[in-house]
Amino acid sequence: MSSLTREKLAQAVALVPRSGADLWLTFVRETSAAGDPALPLILDGGLTWQSALMVSATGDKVAVVGNYDADPLIASGDWDRVVPYVQDIAPVLREELAKLLPSGGKIAVNMSESDVMADGLTHGMFVVLTKILDGLPYELVSAERTVMALRGIKSSEELARIREALSETVTMFGDIASFAKIGVTERAVYNHVHALAKERGLGFSWDPHGDPIVNSGPDSMIGHGIPSDTITIQPGHIFHIDLGLTKNGYSSDIQRCWFVGDSVPEDVTHALESVKRAIRAGFALLKPGVQGWEVDAAARASLIADGYPEYMHALGHQVGRVAHDGGAILGPKWERYGNTPMIPVEEGEVYTIELGITVPNRGYLGLEEMVVVRADGAEWLIPPQESMPLL
Amino acid sequence: MSSLTREKLAQAVALVPRSGADLWLTFVRETSAAGDPALPLILDGGLTWQSALMVSATGDKVAVVGNYDADPLIASGDWDRVVPYVQDIAPVLREELAKLLPSGGKIAVNMSESDVMADGLTHGMFVVLTKILDGLPYELVSAERTVMALRGIKSSEELARIREALSETVTMFGDIASFAKIGVTERAVYNHVHALAKERGLGFSWDPHGDPIVNSGPDSMIGHGIPSDTITIQPGHIFHIDLGLTKNGYSSDIQRCWFVGDSVPEDVTHALESVKRAIRAGFALLKPGVQGWEVDAAARASLIADGYPEYMHALGHQVGRVAHDGGAILGPKWERYGNTPMIPVEEGEVYTIELGITVPNRGYLGLEEMVVVRADGAEWLIPPQESMPLL
Repeated sequence: MSSLTREKLAQAVALVPRSGADLWLTFVRETSAAGDPALPLILDGGLTWQSALMVSATGDKVAVVGNYDADPLIASGDWDRVVPYVQDIAPVLREELAKLLPSGGKIAVNMSESDVMADGLTHGMFVVLTKILDGLPYELVSAERTVMALRGIKSSEELARIREALSETVTMFGDIASFAKIGVTERAVYNHVHALAKERGLGFSWDPHGDPIVNSGPDSMIGHGIPSDTITIQPGHIFHIDLGLTKNGYSSDIQRCWFVGDSVPEDVTHALESVKRAIRAGFALLKPGVQGWEVDAAARASLIADGYPEYMHALGHQVGRVAHDGGAILGPKWERYGNTPMIPVEEGEVYTIELGITVPNRGYLGLEEMVVVRADGAEWLIPPQESMPLL
Repeated sequence: MSSLTREKLAQAVALVPRSGADLWLTFVRETSAAGDPALPLILDGGLTWQSALMVSATGDKVAVVGNYDADPLIASGDWDRVVPYVQDIAPVLREELAKLLPSGGKIAVNMSESDVMADGLTHGMFVVLTKILDGLPYELVSAERTVMALRGIKSSEELARIREALSETVTMFGDIASFAKIGVTERAVYNHVHALAKERGLGFSWDPHGDPIVNSGPDSMIGHGIPSDTITIQPGHIFHIDLGLTKNGYSSDIQRCWFVGDSVPEDVTHALESVKRAIRAGFALLKPGVQGWEVDAAARASLIADGYPEYMHALGHQVGRVAHDGGAILGPKWERYGNTPMIPVEEGEVYTIELGITVPNRGYLGLEEMVVVRADGAEWLIPPQESMPLL
């Protein structure tokens, strides 16, 4: 995958100034146990001892790593300089910084109150770094803007991988439709998906304990619940799946619904049309420069105008290496979303558009689509669900 | 796995005072993307929005989580109280803290300069938490001692799972010995292990890109290198594997060596005996109360007395959910190990004992054993390597 990391490192150079910084520094250790979400964008594999990966605004790419970690980085050809150490990173890191920023400067590190994907620096490592730099002419700033853009704006290779994950997801929905019959438990459907994913070498886009989410009927746990051993598919149920599959490191996140019965009743059709209308209201507004809360507000207003309660989450999030990929979101200005609904949408970002309605006595009717933002607006990555198939 | 999390939560209550705290608070979000290494000890599955898992020294166990995350926590039966929220965790968390610590107190959070496994709180989340608690009578302290002990002191269920992972590892070394023939590349051996692990439903104890480490002969990359596509097993090589397998969430970490040829030459035998002697010098000292640097120093001195250069790493680390499981280590007082070589060893901890010698023109002769610390000393978890099998 080295072509991908090189592509992203080149992109990173151009994005360093977005953080108002001279240098972007990713500071990590034991990444197999506690990984920085930004690291896989610029490095295949892991690092063991305290390691500093540095990208300067002028194009220098320098890695200071433990001596046992150096060989794969050198072999990747991605770095201008790989500097190994044995006992203590501090003097080596200070020396390299002196070369990169001879007159001092601003160093952007991965800390963010709002964006988990730009917040990979732990507090302990922040303290370690502060001590290493004590008395030197550097100022630590947040790399939030750099990391968000690097992660959000997909390269062509990244988009190709997302399309592959989506293709596998469409296939899997077909498998689910054949398997899910009256009397089958939610858990059995979940197990079937896991068996097929294993066979096909696919991973999951979020915690596999809750991927896919499987809901049949009104008594199912909605949201991030675990599939039930006792709830079975029954006539009159809405059968709902939220599935994310990962292939070659990139993810999908799609929701689909079926109706269990011979024909779709009026209340379900009404809900379906309202869900679709709200999704399309958001879709229509999504383009470069818009702020996510505006897109969310349009969908939310559409649903409320149709007489349904508003959804208790954001309309959409970015998708990439994982389902909830951080950065700007299409969400309301709620405290827990921090500043992320106010960040302007950019060309090349990939979003979900998702919402649902609980239909009394039927179950949860939720749909989730995926789009890429183009210069002139959003583009569906797979055809959105139009009608309610029967199960 | 709920019995394990309940076992560990009960253990946690007793360990809160070790941090000098009244309450242990794990503060996380989007854990499928950026997990706190301490979280899997007390929770199966993940959390999406900002979440606070609290264990008080008086035995209260309270979780404040996003409303979509609440059901699985309630279903687990592990928590006295699960409090869901929708828009903002701050008021709910403040209210729960007021109930748990009515007259204020010390709150231990997962921050540590030395121990990656006790350093799961990101800097951004530290800032968020500081703002939530602003003006309230709480003091944040490091939960390092609580988390280290909770992670290090294995319950009987945890030890049983480590033994299972070791049993799979012994089997895999048998498979490797049959597969690894003259002319086979390092990469082919690596691929063979990955295919078998997939078949058997096993995971890897560190980054799978570098697990197993496969080294044949003097030109191989030692340490955390990636297996070579071009280096093949040849007569006269030392063939070396460093393998960690994970089963049911618990890990192994073992190194084994073979000699490629009809008989083991004298220089290789001499190195083998010195490696074994040094490992046993460490093993003999390892018991509750000893400090890791003393154990390391004994092994290091043995190797030097035999005329070999000292190894450039620690003699051993704890093993549990991952290979490098944090906490006290058996290592020298080098800067990058922080205070971890000075933490007293405790009964119930599981360690590796590992070191190696580069034999000129032959390759790397490294062995790694695993032990559990009992009241009266260390106990091998599988029989240590005694002689050099031929390949």
